[in-house]
Amino acid sequence: MSEQSEAGRRWIIEAEIMPKQGVNDPQGDAVMSGLKSLSFDGARRVRVGKLIRVEVSASSEDDALDQGTRMCERLLANPVIEEFVVSAARIG
Amino acid sequence: MSEQSEAGRRWIIEAEIMPKQGVNDPQGDAVMSGLKSLSFDGARRVRVGKLIRVEVSASSEDDALDQGTRMCERLLANPVIEEFVVSAARIG
Repeated sequence: MSEQSEAGRRWIIEAEIMPKQGVNDPQGDAVMSGLKSLSFDGARRVRVGKLIRVEVSASSEDDALDQGTRMCERLLANPVIEEFVVSAARIG
Repeated sequence: MSEQSEAGRRWIIEAEIMPKQGVNDPQGDAVMSGLKSLSFDGARRVRVGKLIRVEVSASSEDDALDQGTRMCERLLANPVIEEFVVSAARIG
């Protein structure tokens, strides 16, 4: 029964998905070029990725992280060109 | 002179840019729909934003954060529909 109620706890999963090192990042190149034209001359090595937040039910932090990892592997990230980091914060 | 050398310190600025609450998030809707079709039934309230990392020279954390904030205001974020959070980590 305790298990049952714990499964109802709500978490926010956050997935940071970035292009892997060495992989072309055309969005990053576009931002770099925009920064230069705005005179942000010290800017270097711009990388543009995705930040995805999903609210889920999970029994524990490990459960939430596991769900987030599976979401990235199956839908959110492209493992050929992207790497991801998943974190979880309890909200209820 | 100390000022000069400190300005050469390198920082990574990270900007988290998310659609504001109440603003349509078609990418989030698409991800939600994908998660449902993969049987992630507990998923709710998906939001998809951007994560942008830029390497800059800055004399202090405040300087780095200030540069990141100006980059968001002038180029990276659309203040009408997006909100952003900037953080900075020293790397050299």
